[in-house]
Formats: sequence, C-alpha cells, structure tokens
Amino acid sequence: MVGPVAVGGGAPVVVQTMTNPDTRDVAATLAQIEAVRLRGAELVRVAVPDARAARALFDIAPRSGLPVIADIHFDHRLALLAVEAGAAGLRLNPGNIGDPVKIRKVALAAAKAGAAVRVGVNSGSLDPAMLAKYGRGPEAMVASALREAALIEETGYANLKVSLKASDVGLTAAAARLWSQYSDIPQHLGITESGDSRSGSVRSAVGLGILLNEGLGDTVRVSLTGPPEDEVDCAWEILRSLELRSRGPNFISCPTCGRCEIDLPSLLADVKSRLADLAVPLTVAVMGCVVNGPGEAGAADLGVAGGRGGGRLFVRGSRPRALPYGELAAALESAARKMAGEREAAGAAAKGREGRGRPEGAARLKTPPG
Amino acid sequence: MVGPVAVGGGAPVVVQTMTNPDTRDVAATLAQIEAVRLRGAELVRVAVPDARAARALFDIAPRSGLPVIADIHFDHRLALLAVEAGAAGLRLNPGNIGDPVKIRKVALAAAKAGAAVRVGVNSGSLDPAMLAKYGRGPEAMVASALREAALIEETGYANLKVSLKASDVGLTAAAARLWSQYSDIPQHLGITESGDSRSGSVRSAVGLGILLNEGLGDTVRVSLTGPPEDEVDCAWEILRSLELRSRGPNFISCPTCGRCEIDLPSLLADVKSRLADLAVPLTVAVMGCVVNGPGEAGAADLGVAGGRGGGRLFVRGSRPRALPYGELAAALESAARKMAGEREAAGAAAKGREGRGRPEGAARLKTPPG
Repeated sequence: MVGPVAVGGGAPVVVQTMTNPDTRDVAATLAQIEAVRLRGAELVRVAVPDARAARALFDIAPRSGLPVIADIHFDHRLALLAVEAGAAGLRLNPGNIGDPVKIRKVALAAAKAGAAVRVGVNSGSLDPAMLAKYGRGPEAMVASALREAALIEETGYANLKVSLKASDVGLTAAAARLWSQYSDIPQHLGITESGDSRSGSVRSAVGLGILLNEGLGDTVRVSLTGPPEDEVDCAWEILRSLELRSRGPNFISCPTCGRCEIDLPSLLADVKSRLADLAVPLTVAVMGCVVNGPGEAGAADLGVAGGRGGGRLFVRGSRPRALPYGELAAALESAARKMAGEREAAGAAAKGREGRGRPEGAARLKTPPG
Repeated sequence: MVGPVAVGGGAPVVVQTMTNPDTRDVAATLAQIEAVRLRGAELVRVAVPDARAARALFDIAPRSGLPVIADIHFDHRLALLAVEAGAAGLRLNPGNIGDPVKIRKVALAAAKAGAAVRVGVNSGSLDPAMLAKYGRGPEAMVASALREAALIEETGYANLKVSLKASDVGLTAAAARLWSQYSDIPQHLGITESGDSRSGSVRSAVGLGILLNEGLGDTVRVSLTGPPEDEVDCAWEILRSLELRSRGPNFISCPTCGRCEIDLPSLLADVKSRLADLAVPLTVAVMGCVVNGPGEAGAADLGVAGGRGGGRLFVRGSRPRALPYGELAAALESAARKMAGEREAAGAAAKGREGRGRPEGAARLKTPPG
C-alpha cells in the first residue's frame, strides 16, 4: 500500500510518474502533481536532493492530490524528514546510502508512519562492491536489491517494493525475470534514461510491454526526457494495449495511405480533443477508406469510415449513417457521449472488471508456455 | 527476396513503410520514397486503388531508390499491371480478391517477373465466409492466409510472405503465433490502424516488441496516422531496443527530475540534431545529474553527465573532462564524429555482426522457455 493505493497482490498495475520542477518550488510541484493526476497518474514521486527539498515536502504532501513518494539518495536523514513530512512512500537506492544502521533506522521510521519503501536499483549507480563481484549485469542488480531488502525486512518492515532499472531493455528484462525467481516482493518496472518523448516512449513500450505480458510488474513508470504528462499517457497506452487497464477512449485510426479520400489526421485530432475529458472506456475507430474502414468501425464501439467527401458513422447496435465530412466529428462526439452516459448509468461494470486482477484479454495475449 | 532485399531465412528484420500521397502524383510519391529511404526504410509500399495509380507505377518503380510493393485490393488486373510496371512486390488481400482463378493468374505473372507476393490478411476486412466459419479471431485470419497461400503455391510460386494484422495487440499476437505453428512462410508484422504518432507508436512497440522478442517476424511496418518518416523512426527504435538491428546513435537520456541542474532537453535536442546524419551505431548518454549520470555516461560509448552550470564529457577509453554547459554539445559532437570515423575505418565490423541473423543480445532478451 502506498497511501490508499494497492500495489501488487493481484491489484491492477498502478501508473506513476515523477515531477521535474525543483521540489523546493512548492507551487510548481503541486501544480504538476495536479496536472499528472488529471492525466491518470495514481502515484507521484518527487526528488529530494537536500534538506530544503525535504522541508518543502511538509507543504507538498498534505496538499497533493496523489500519494507522494520521496526519492532519496546518499543521505538517510532526508528519508527520515520525508517520512515526518507525510510522504506515503520512500524510494531508496542501495548503491548510495550504504550503511546498514542508517537503512534500518529509515525502515523503523517508515514502519511507524505507515510509509511504503521502494528499493530502487539502477544499473547506472550500482554499489562498486557489487559491480566488482558480479559485473554490470542482472546478477549485480538483483543481489543489490536482495541485500537491501533483507536489511529492511530484518527490522520487521513488510511494505516493500523493488525496482531494477537499466536504460537497456535486455538488461532490465533479465533483471526483472531474475528477481521474480528469488522474491515475491512487488516490482516497480521502468526503463530508465530511455530518451525523449518519441524514442523513449517506444523503448519503454517494448521493455515494459514484454515484461507486463509475461505477468511481471505491479506498478510502472515511463521515464522520458520530457513532460511527465507524456510519461503518464505512454504508461496508459501500454496498459491499454495489453488490455491490463482501461481508461477513456481507445482510438483506432488508419495510416492514411493513397486510398484515403478525406482529411483523416484533422478529423482524428478533432475527435480526440472533443473526447479528451471522457474517462469511460470506449473503442473509437476513425478510418479513411472503404477497405478496412467498415470492418474496424463496425467492430469498435463507434466509429467513422471515410469515403468520397464524407463518411459513414457506425454506432454499435445501430445501422451505419452517411454524413458529410464537416458533420462527422460532432456526430461521433455526440454518439460517444451518449454511449458513455449509458454505460455510466448502467453501473461501474467496466470498473469492476478492471479492479479484480487481470482480465481475460491479458491471459490470451501472454506468452504461451514453452 | 523483394527486389534485392532478403526477407526471412535468417536475414535481419527489414524495415518498411507505406507512402501516403495519392499514388497518381508521381513526383510527391517519389519525393516521399526518397525521404523515408534516408530515414532508414528498406522497402516501400504504395497504394494502387485504380488503373491510373497502377499506370503511375511505370514512372515510380524505375526511379524509386527502394524496391516498391504495390498494395492491391479487389481488382486482380491492377496486380498484373503493377508487375508489368516493375513492382518488386505485391500485397494482396485474400478477403477481397476472392476468385481462385484470378489469384493464380497474378501468381503466374509475379513468378515470371520475379516479384514477391504478400498475402496480407487484415482482421477488419476478412472474407465473410471465413468470419462465419471461425468468428473474428486468429483462426479466421490464419485460415484465410493459409487458403490464399495454398492457391498461390499450387502454381509453383514460392516467393511468398504473409501478414496477419489487427488493430488489437492481443489478436495480432495470437494470429502471428498461430501462423508460426502452421507455416514457415516469412511473416510481415504490424499493428494496423494503431492511432496517431504518439499512441500508435506505443501500441506498435508493445505488439511488435512482444512478437519480435519471441523470435517471430521477418519484416515490420509500423502503421501510424501520421508521416511515414515517423513510422520508420519507430520501427528502428523497436529493433534497436531489442538489439536486433542497429543504426546511428542510440541516445540514452534521463527524465530531468528535480535533481537536474542543466537544461537537459535543449542539450539533448541540440546533440540529436548535430548527429542526425550519423549512420554508424554509437551509444550516446545525455544525463542531467551526478546520481545516475557518471554510471550511464561511463558505460556508453560517449556521454555527458550534467552538474552545476556544466558537465563532464565521457569518452570510452579517456578520462572524463569537465566543460561549461555551452561547450558540451559541440564537444560531444566532435568526439562522436571522431569515434564514428575510427569505427568506419576499422571496417564494417558492426555491419558484419548485424548481417548474420540475430546477435546475442537478442537471444538473452528472449522469453525464457516455460
């Protein structure tokens, strides 16, 4: 449990991100927390590089709309301060706190305050002793995490998570798999230093996609050199792709080949912005032509299949309706809002399905044995 | 073989894309083919919706810098024209040509001209008879492809590929796995109608990443509602992430948390644009702080770890060098060009490694059995 959010033990995979203003700037940090919350973040981490940042947490934690996790390096006293400030979780790096006495002190304080602890191993900042013993591979990462987890668990503390991150997809995957052979402690997954929003999203999607599809991972953070809102969007898109979670419209749209006779990118952008506030899961197809359009639009909850000068609106359960181009976006919006309203009224069926572990779609997708 | 490009049989996974101007606009189509070639596309597909588009191929195919694949629906005579025009490959859709006599006629013409044929099944445009028999699932997709492949192979034709695409990651993965149980015919992988450049890249990376990691797939096309250059970038990033192919600099950069003391997004963008023309594979780390920076930059071929007002330049084999912020990008560029030049001079070692099937990195990443 990180505050009121369950991580691991069959709970849905949790989306988290990290703020990037200077943590000492309380207003900017709180504003970004609110922005990522609205985008779908469920936990938020803030960097605590010094005592002033730790003191800022006394203002941030109680006013944050999300449970706050303090990211601590080098100095265990910052962790003690963060717990006192009301952080719902701590992220510690075994490579740079070191002293077992200090680590135990933090564990006791966290236990008393009910704060979660993540042992966050990063291949870029491994303990030199571990590196010397095992080399820069998954073994050094897992051994570091096991050692720190044991130190913490010896105090009787039991609210642990671990992460084993590298910028390399292969190394991250190998470490996550190796960890799952040694421990049941929930895993936070991420590809660290993965690049800017474009290349980093792809690298994270490959790495997290492979691991989540194998059933590994209880919470995810996509790391991008870019706005944390992009990290949250990417994380949700990964979870949606694997049918592990659902949130808002799932857009299906075609790549506008030479057969496309309408301005599809504009139509898609228009429809996306009209439905940006919708949280109810819906599949919406925005397709350009008569080859794949009717099939995809007909199979979706609702959709448009373009044709010469206009298109046909498909709404599940109704007959397709031909409309001129200029009316497609508004008609799709109104049909989507109607359907979303009906689903909400019909009760939280989708939410119920999502809440209890992983739905069937994920099981079907998982790598078959052997 | 699609023109001079090998697909399947242990060849490296081939990157392809599709043009989106009207194919009848020869100049625009050729310009886009050149643009995607420079970005790393190795094959290019063009839509051939009618006889005028097919006739345009007579001007496009001989002047294209990439082998051209003609995308044909409904009318087999367009396929015959495309082969005559010099298309290196055809993509046929079993759901909408139908008549076995016509399909055989196309196969004979392709065989004579040495053109490849892809049987491209799409879950959005399945033969209604197959849908009725198997439902909209992987079985209907695989059965459609097997039937059309058999029709074509009966003529003695042997240069076949198949694709089994859906907009749904789970369905695409299930179909690709099922196909590999029935046939050795090489697979073209793609998630169709996957959305705009942002969400579609992520969905494609999840789907193709999982399948490529299982050893499936011989050529990939990322479908985005956006410029085909983005499709090529995304495909390369997926292949790079899995260590299946390498091309140009592989950037590692951190997500600029509250610990970052330099303007990292600007530095990264500057370095990326300075090195955009580099084709030699290099790992370049652009990191903001002293926590993970030195580890990542030291493990990369070269890199920068930021600090207060500047940073340290790491070049493999040399001692780190402290520099002010304003000099970091230029110093990194010059070190990267020097290293790239040395590697090129040392021979095509990287190319040789890449050319022979999959490197060890990929084997390590692959899903362990059971």
